[in-house]
Amino acid sequence: MSCDFMALATPGVQGLHPYEAGKPVEELERELGIHDIIKLASNENPLGPSAYAIEAVQKALAEATRYPDSNGFRLKEALHQYYGLMPEQLTLGNGSNDVLELIARAFLQPGDEVIFSEYAFAVYHIVTQACSAKAVITPARDYGHNLQAMAEAITENTRLIFIANPNNPTGTALMRDELTAFLAAVPEHVIVVLDEAYTEYVEAGDFPDGLELLPQFPNLVVTRTFSKAWGLAGLRVGFAAASTVITDLLNRVRQPFNVSHLALAAAEAVLDDGDYLARSVELNRRGMAQLEQGLKQLGVGYIPSFGNFITVDMARPAQPLFQALLHEGVIVRPLGGYRMPQHLRISIGLTNENDRFLRALKQVLAC
Amino acid sequence: MSCDFMALATPGVQGLHPYEAGKPVEELERELGIHDIIKLASNENPLGPSAYAIEAVQKALAEATRYPDSNGFRLKEALHQYYGLMPEQLTLGNGSNDVLELIARAFLQPGDEVIFSEYAFAVYHIVTQACSAKAVITPARDYGHNLQAMAEAITENTRLIFIANPNNPTGTALMRDELTAFLAAVPEHVIVVLDEAYTEYVEAGDFPDGLELLPQFPNLVVTRTFSKAWGLAGLRVGFAAASTVITDLLNRVRQPFNVSHLALAAAEAVLDDGDYLARSVELNRRGMAQLEQGLKQLGVGYIPSFGNFITVDMARPAQPLFQALLHEGVIVRPLGGYRMPQHLRISIGLTNENDRFLRALKQVLAC
Repeated sequence: MSCDFMALATPGVQGLHPYEAGKPVEELERELGIHDIIKLASNENPLGPSAYAIEAVQKALAEATRYPDSNGFRLKEALHQYYGLMPEQLTLGNGSNDVLELIARAFLQPGDEVIFSEYAFAVYHIVTQACSAKAVITPARDYGHNLQAMAEAITENTRLIFIANPNNPTGTALMRDELTAFLAAVPEHVIVVLDEAYTEYVEAGDFPDGLELLPQFPNLVVTRTFSKAWGLAGLRVGFAAASTVITDLLNRVRQPFNVSHLALAAAEAVLDDGDYLARSVELNRRGMAQLEQGLKQLGVGYIPSFGNFITVDMARPAQPLFQALLHEGVIVRPLGGYRMPQHLRISIGLTNENDRFLRALKQVLAC
Repeated sequence: MSCDFMALATPGVQGLHPYEAGKPVEELERELGIHDIIKLASNENPLGPSAYAIEAVQKALAEATRYPDSNGFRLKEALHQYYGLMPEQLTLGNGSNDVLELIARAFLQPGDEVIFSEYAFAVYHIVTQACSAKAVITPARDYGHNLQAMAEAITENTRLIFIANPNNPTGTALMRDELTAFLAAVPEHVIVVLDEAYTEYVEAGDFPDGLELLPQFPNLVVTRTFSKAWGLAGLRVGFAAASTVITDLLNRVRQPFNVSHLALAAAEAVLDDGDYLARSVELNRRGMAQLEQGLKQLGVGYIPSFGNFITVDMARPAQPLFQALLHEGVIVRPLGGYRMPQHLRISIGLTNENDRFLRALKQVLAC
């Protein structure tokens, strides 16, 4: 091969490092030849899918040869009923990863600046880089967003700011007053993307609901996912809510059939299953308390979390501990790629899974 | 709202017109209040899904709360078994639309040129425009690709050439000798994307298999889909096969969970269902003959087709006929958006659906 195809790629893609996913159970089985593995690595809902979702998928399967409804009419109607959002405010995505990417692709030209915090969801950096735009990374404050630093980083080249609330991978949260003060201070030509993937888990009274802030801030885009508390990570569905103008732009870039027929059906159905959501949140509350207590007993520090995961400070390089836990059949998430080489992120699991993790951690710490 | 958000979008997105999907049955039911509708508009497999695929999805549903395997290990293994392709040659996509877009995003910078034929799949234009690149549209020859015109359109700014074989929306095909001569003439810095979405339907002995051409042409990318003969349009899965270098680039841009857990499982399963593929192709062959005969009887001209659809020349503006057919409960595809305002594209359906279309066409022509 004489041609240098790498050199033909865009500058952004040449420098792009793909996302590293949590290790799948099957992959660990193949690699280590072990079984009875638990995965607490990807902040998935440990309950298993809603019966409503399963039934909806089974019913929708007969139409699997047909393309999905490219406009997602029924799911948008369901979202209207549930959240009060109008269809023309909604952009459906193949997970919220997809809508985060659509936002970047609609607005970013090479050289534009994108602000996010040093401990932020990896996809913000990836979509910025893929558009050959410039990542402006602001220092964190107590592992969370330092809104003052973010506001000060805005220049005339700033196009987007990504904020996750609660934040992944640290679990920190911004409360209503500080968030709205920040939004009020951001110039309107800068679009603020508020990623609320974990919002359903938060029970604090002064925690903001981004959807309620939309009428006030026309430069705000709120993203939501069905992958966490709604339990549909494997089906891939999420959405962005924004003004009609921004929504029009996002839908221009969107692939017409980006959300599968089964995912549309499952998401529509699960919105009717309030009991599933309540059980998911309750299970998370109890599991979080269980892990906090167990970690305290082991003398392991952690960052108090508003999500469905807890990030622990091992006070030493965490990668060897991650590997040792794998050999115990427990998959967690090392955070070296997030510039937190001494931390591990543990998703809240079922009671017995949390217990198994705590026992495995005790064992590997004793080695 | 004081800020002009449209002006903040990239130049490409500002000029972007989204894809117009075939009208869904449910939408027509809502609009016209009629029932018993048949859809011959989106080149879907009329057989209904493979029993293998249904069983695989039902089994995979228990894991719907888990993220899909971001590397698609098992599906890539199945593709290796079926096509002899190595995993490092494969990029999995959320339908082949997704991989077509990945190719554009990996290689196109503003101002780069992209060549495709005047009657070409709408997505080529959309992904080009979304990257703010320049579409260079070459005239067709007998509704098919004019390879000489395409070769002559190459400049030093040409980055991609899109060729569909068979072509959509015209159904024309390029045979082995002319295609390989063209590929040999294209400079290596120009990447040729050979879209083989409809390849499974072609039975001509001198029809080329792009996958076999890959070792010979390092600048070739072949795309395939499970949406047509494999009957999984609603699940969204396709792939690109290319050199390892190009594959690496495409996978950098790919969203890590772009293919759902259910789609991965269904595609893997359906590759084992050779009988389903054979029945799909056989049904198409018979349906094509049925439509050709019926059209001849009605005196309606058509473009001989190698795909699972047939494009008919109404010799007058076709949009009113499309509307009239809708009122008969028959959805076909008008091709005004493809610069063919006098043509309609009819997907091959079940025998009774083809018959119903022919009767409806006869009726609306008589009005």
